[in-house]
Parts: sequence; C-alpha cells; structure tokens
Amino acid sequence: MSAIEQAELENFSADWRDFPVLNRALTSRLQSDGIEVEWDDKRVSHYHFLWLRDNCPCPQCIHPGTREQIFEIIDVPEDLRAETAELKGDELLVRWQDGHESAYGTGWLRAHSYDSESRQERQQTLRTANVWKTDLAIPTFDYKAVMSEDQALLQWLLAVRDTGLTLMTGMPTTEDIMEQVAHRISFIRESNFGTLFEVRTKVEAVNSNAYTSLQLPAHTDLPTRELQPGLQFLHCLVNDATGGESTFVDGFAIAKAVREQSPEDFKLLTEVPVSFRNKAPQSDYRSYAPIIGLDARGEISEIRLANWLRAPFDVAGADMPAFYRAYRRFFALTRDPAFIVSHRLAAGEMWCFDNRRTMHARNAFDQTSGMRHLRGCYMDRDELLSRILVLQRTC
Amino acid sequence: MSAIEQAELENFSADWRDFPVLNRALTSRLQSDGIEVEWDDKRVSHYHFLWLRDNCPCPQCIHPGTREQIFEIIDVPEDLRAETAELKGDELLVRWQDGHESAYGTGWLRAHSYDSESRQERQQTLRTANVWKTDLAIPTFDYKAVMSEDQALLQWLLAVRDTGLTLMTGMPTTEDIMEQVAHRISFIRESNFGTLFEVRTKVEAVNSNAYTSLQLPAHTDLPTRELQPGLQFLHCLVNDATGGESTFVDGFAIAKAVREQSPEDFKLLTEVPVSFRNKAPQSDYRSYAPIIGLDARGEISEIRLANWLRAPFDVAGADMPAFYRAYRRFFALTRDPAFIVSHRLAAGEMWCFDNRRTMHARNAFDQTSGMRHLRGCYMDRDELLSRILVLQRTC
Repeated sequence: MSAIEQAELENFSADWRDFPVLNRALTSRLQSDGIEVEWDDKRVSHYHFLWLRDNCPCPQCIHPGTREQIFEIIDVPEDLRAETAELKGDELLVRWQDGHESAYGTGWLRAHSYDSESRQERQQTLRTANVWKTDLAIPTFDYKAVMSEDQALLQWLLAVRDTGLTLMTGMPTTEDIMEQVAHRISFIRESNFGTLFEVRTKVEAVNSNAYTSLQLPAHTDLPTRELQPGLQFLHCLVNDATGGESTFVDGFAIAKAVREQSPEDFKLLTEVPVSFRNKAPQSDYRSYAPIIGLDARGEISEIRLANWLRAPFDVAGADMPAFYRAYRRFFALTRDPAFIVSHRLAAGEMWCFDNRRTMHARNAFDQTSGMRHLRGCYMDRDELLSRILVLQRTC
Repeated sequence: MSAIEQAELENFSADWRDFPVLNRALTSRLQSDGIEVEWDDKRVSHYHFLWLRDNCPCPQCIHPGTREQIFEIIDVPEDLRAETAELKGDELLVRWQDGHESAYGTGWLRAHSYDSESRQERQQTLRTANVWKTDLAIPTFDYKAVMSEDQALLQWLLAVRDTGLTLMTGMPTTEDIMEQVAHRISFIRESNFGTLFEVRTKVEAVNSNAYTSLQLPAHTDLPTRELQPGLQFLHCLVNDATGGESTFVDGFAIAKAVREQSPEDFKLLTEVPVSFRNKAPQSDYRSYAPIIGLDARGEISEIRLANWLRAPFDVAGADMPAFYRAYRRFFALTRDPAFIVSHRLAAGEMWCFDNRRTMHARNAFDQTSGMRHLRGCYMDRDELLSRILVLQRTC
C-alpha cells in the first residue's frame, strides 16, 4: 500500500454529487433475483440483489470519513437474497438474509438505475466534441480574466475540452507566465524533452536553415508514447520574424469525414495498429496503436499521427492496398484548405490545444528576418477534466 | 510546430538498427501491383508499389541527418508503378514511372517483409510476460551494482518488464536515494499527489488507528487515470514497526486463470468498461475502462482495479448477474494464497513493480510498535522500455 491511498483516503471528502428526488418511487416489489421499483413516471427499474448489496451506503460498508467502500462483494454468497424490501419516505429499506440492513435514497437509486430507458437517458447527456473546419472563430480568452476569475477559467477549459483549440491573449512575455497559467489547471506533464521546451530561433542561426525548411505535415506530438500528451501550450514571447503562422486541423472532423466518405477506411484506421518510433542517442520510444482511437463508448477520442515517425506498415499483404487507401484519404484531408485554421501568434499570445485531437502543422518562416521565441509544455486530459469538474461544483 | 519536433529532429540519430543480409535475394519480379522477391530459403515476399515508394530511403525522401521521412505518400498517385526492378549486389533497385529511383538494402527488405511467413516469424519473437504465483523467487538486485554497471541496470529493468515485481537491496536510507535510482532509468511521473509521496507513520499517530485498520484489498494505484502509472517505486527508509508485510499478486496470472476457468468471464472483464472515481476537495478524477486491458495485439497488457474507487456498475440489466460473476471470480483469485507473494520491506530495501500488472494489497501493521517511513514515486512503462532499448544497443 502506498501513500497514494493514504492521501486518497485522507483528502477524500464526500461524493460531491447530491441526488435529489426528481421522481418518486411508488412501489417496490421483492422478486426472485432482485427488487423492482416503479416510479411516478411509470418507469420500472430492476435492481439485482448483488448490485444493491454492493452499493449499500451504511457506515459499515462505506467509510463515513472517506465515503469509499470498505465492503467487498465477495464476502457475501453469490445467491444472497433480500428478506424484505420496503419504501419509506425517500428511502428503499432492505433487510438481507444475513441480517444486514441497507437504506438507499431513492434519488440516488433513480440516478443509478440500469433499466434500458435510464441507461439511454444517461447516454444522451454525454457530450460530444464540437467539430470544426476552416471557418472556426478560434475561442479566445483574456489572460487577466482567466487568472483572476474562476468563471473565466472554466469557460476557457470548456473550450479546450469541447473545441480543442483556444487562444489566450494579453499575456505578459516574461518567461514564467506560461507555467503560471498551466498551474491554474494543474501540474505539467514532463517528457524526455523536459518539463518545458523552448522553440527559439535567432537571426544568426543560419546553420539550421536547411532543417527549418523541412515541411512537417499536420501531426500530433509524441505519437511514440502510449499516452500522447493531452494538451499542448505554446506561449509566444517574441515574434519579430516574418511568416510563422500556426496552422491547425480538427483531427476529429477529419476522422468523421473519413467515416462519411468511406466507412471501410474509417474501420481500418480505427482497427489496424501502426508503429511509431523515435530513436535518439538517449531514448528509443515506440508505440503500436491505430491512427484513430475510439474510447470505451466507441466515440472518436484520439488521433495519433506524425508521418515522419511512422515505421513501415506491417499488415497482411492482402490488406496493404486498402490500408494505404485509408491512410492516404485521411492524410489528404489534413491538407484540405476546408479544414485548415491558421493564425500568426504574436508576442503575448498563447495556444492551448488538445494534442490528441487538433493536429498542428509546421509553419515555415524566414529566420533571417528577426527573432522568434516560443515556450511550450504539455498536460494530460485527466488534469483538464478534473479541474473542470471541481470548478463546476461552485461556478 | 513545437520544440519537440526540433528536439526530435536535432537529437535524432540514425535508425540504430542494422539490417544485415541474413538471406540472399535470388530473383525480383515486376508484377502488376508490386514487386515479388524470392529468397534463398524459398520464401517469396511481395511488396506493393505504394509500400515500396513510401519507404524509399534516398536522401530526398529521408532526411540524411535525422533519418526521418520527408516524403509524403500522397504526393504520388495511388496507381504509381515501377518501370524496372533489379537486384544488384545486396540492393533492390527500383525505377519509378515518374523517374524517381529507390535502392533498398535486401537486409532491410527481408526484415520488413509482410508475407504471412515473415509476419508469423516476427510474431513469434514477441515476448510474453512471465506470469508467477506464490512460489516466485522475487528477482532481487543490488543497489551498488545497478548504480554503477549498465549490465546490472539492464538485468533489473528486464525483470521489471518481464516479471513486474523486483526488490532492490543494499540501498542507503537517505531521502534522495530513490530519485537517484529512478533517474538511472528516466524522469519521474508526477501526479496530483506530487512527484514523490511519503508513507510515514509515527508511534504517536494513534488518531489514525481506525483508518489504518481498513483492509484495502489488492489493487492498482490511480485506476481513475486514463493511463495508470506504469511503475511504482517504494523505498523503505525506516521500518521499526511490527508487521507491515507487502503483499502482491500477479494480475496477469489472475487474468489468465480467469480465462482458463471461464472464457466468458474473461471476455466480460476485457470488454465491459467500469467507472473509477476519486473525488477530493481539489480534484475529481474519473476513468471508464475495462478491468482487464488488452493491447493492440490482443495480449493482456493491463489490470485496472481498486475496489473502493469503483462507481456502481452500469451495464444492461440482463448482463448484470454475469458481470458480477466475472468480477467476483477475478476478485476472489486476488485473495487466493496460491497467487500471493509477500515480504516485509526492511530499511534500505525498495520495491519496483509494474503497477498496471502487479496488484498490491494494504498491509496492516501495529503502528504503536515503532516508526515506519516509505517513500514512493511513479514512472511510465514508456520510459522503462526506452531505457531498455538504449541499454541493449551496447550491453
């Protein structure tokens, strides 16, 4: 056991959700395998005995301080039955064969019903990403407001979550500002490139001219990692060079376009794993995953692609032409002007985008024309989502 | 474009692998959709035109400094054909319709063949985890050797990767030692609990007696995160208390046992997502994933389970009894003495285990009997695997 559990137990306070009684339970019926509750809107919910026993909220089963479960479901027999079930006020009272007693708030019970109607209802409340194309009005947020007002912070974070591309303006151009903004959300994710990275080009750096003339296509950063960084921050401290526009495409919009154009190509891109590799003197990162990732609900949840970090495709010969067809379709769409959003970052502006969704392209610029200094860092989606949920408790 | 790409490009040196000629190519034949090569062991490999063109190693297609691809496959037509194909020495020379020329080393070509025999051969070289039960001789490594010899470091890391549970002995008991050992591998993964965590109990801390008497079952840490930490380090600085054994089970061994006992239960545990939640005043982490995770190859790659962080199961009513049957089967095996390994960590010893595989259980101890101080941190599997590959270049 680690300190994490200790910390989780000590810091944990209540389940922050309330479960108000939105529907009254009219009747409860003891059945052979569970308890059936009929609600005032005619919905009927069945609760299996094990499920109910597993979720008993009494202080012997749930630690009153931590609100986490102490009880373990294998400590009752699989065929455990209730002896009585009774509605009383806003509670369902259950007495078990072994004498244990449970009282469930009907608000909680209704919120966790798993009849098909209730599950469908919950499904419908799940958010889906707002996909965008070239006509996106980039959601833009003011530094001072975000730093001083929780409501402004929340609005920014919701845009990062739902649109996946945001611009912050009015930032100082001192070196520690980006970390301060990132820490309004949470801690920064380190990589083998450090906690912060610098994109700095000076007028005299002519020896890397050839290198900067490489046209890097739209991509996600660190596709060689099992978990690509969720968010990328890029703060512009100096931009006196000409050119240097940032360009972005919504990888989710492109994945959807692929699905519309060819469900078969979409299937290949979600099912066939591709190797990404990045070898350096002190590191050798390799991943093996499909280009379009789906979450446990089957929703598009991730794009993984940097053309120059791909290993040779390793699929069965009979499938190779189809896989190239799918790959080319996806890749061609990342170049389609209909999807491309671009903006030249000025000093005091910062991008914050979803690196597992919003693909960014390398922007050419004339490095003999002036200095350019961007500073970047990563964070994971978990931290973003956690911060949003905490802010939503009070905002 | 971020500094990451810059760093990746600048730091990148050659593909570190050599591809010696292990089989001679006897003939090459231009076909309607690709080139067929026959090898001296009678194997016949077919390479599609697009695949070959995509992997052209010439300096216009692959940046000679970075060894990464500049060419993008959508810049040639889908029906691109070779005009000629010819074996010359250890190279396959191809001249394309558009005049571009490619020369492939036959060693490289053979190593990347995707005929079914070649793919099967590569499949067989993939390692599988060494699963263990109670009779495991815990792989044990000496601190001094690991810190001073790359070969000893490599052996330790291979054991972490393949067995998922290791003990380090002979460590100083000063506070910064664990970080130094961790940095022999790579950087530490931060969480909302910090970069390092402390498990410290003093004789006088009687007010938390009730809390420490909680029996936490075998679990993985931070199952509420999209990516659970890969490795957990726990360094014992002081252990004067009686009791306090660490106990572990191999979650992969248990998953395999479930699969043997009931393929149907195994399927449910790999397919039905479960919510894990952890709410605190300043955080609210939620994940939604199956308890047994499979990788892109279909191999067991992860266990995700902490009984007290589970949300109520949300599966269709008709499937609920079967899901409880599967969950109880898995959970019961984590208590089965046949799977449990235990050892009482002494001062100067450290665990390093795979947190996504090796489940650890809370160990009760008498905190009135003496002081106990463990220090822990996390790291991801990517860092472990990268370090192994780098060490293997020279060890």
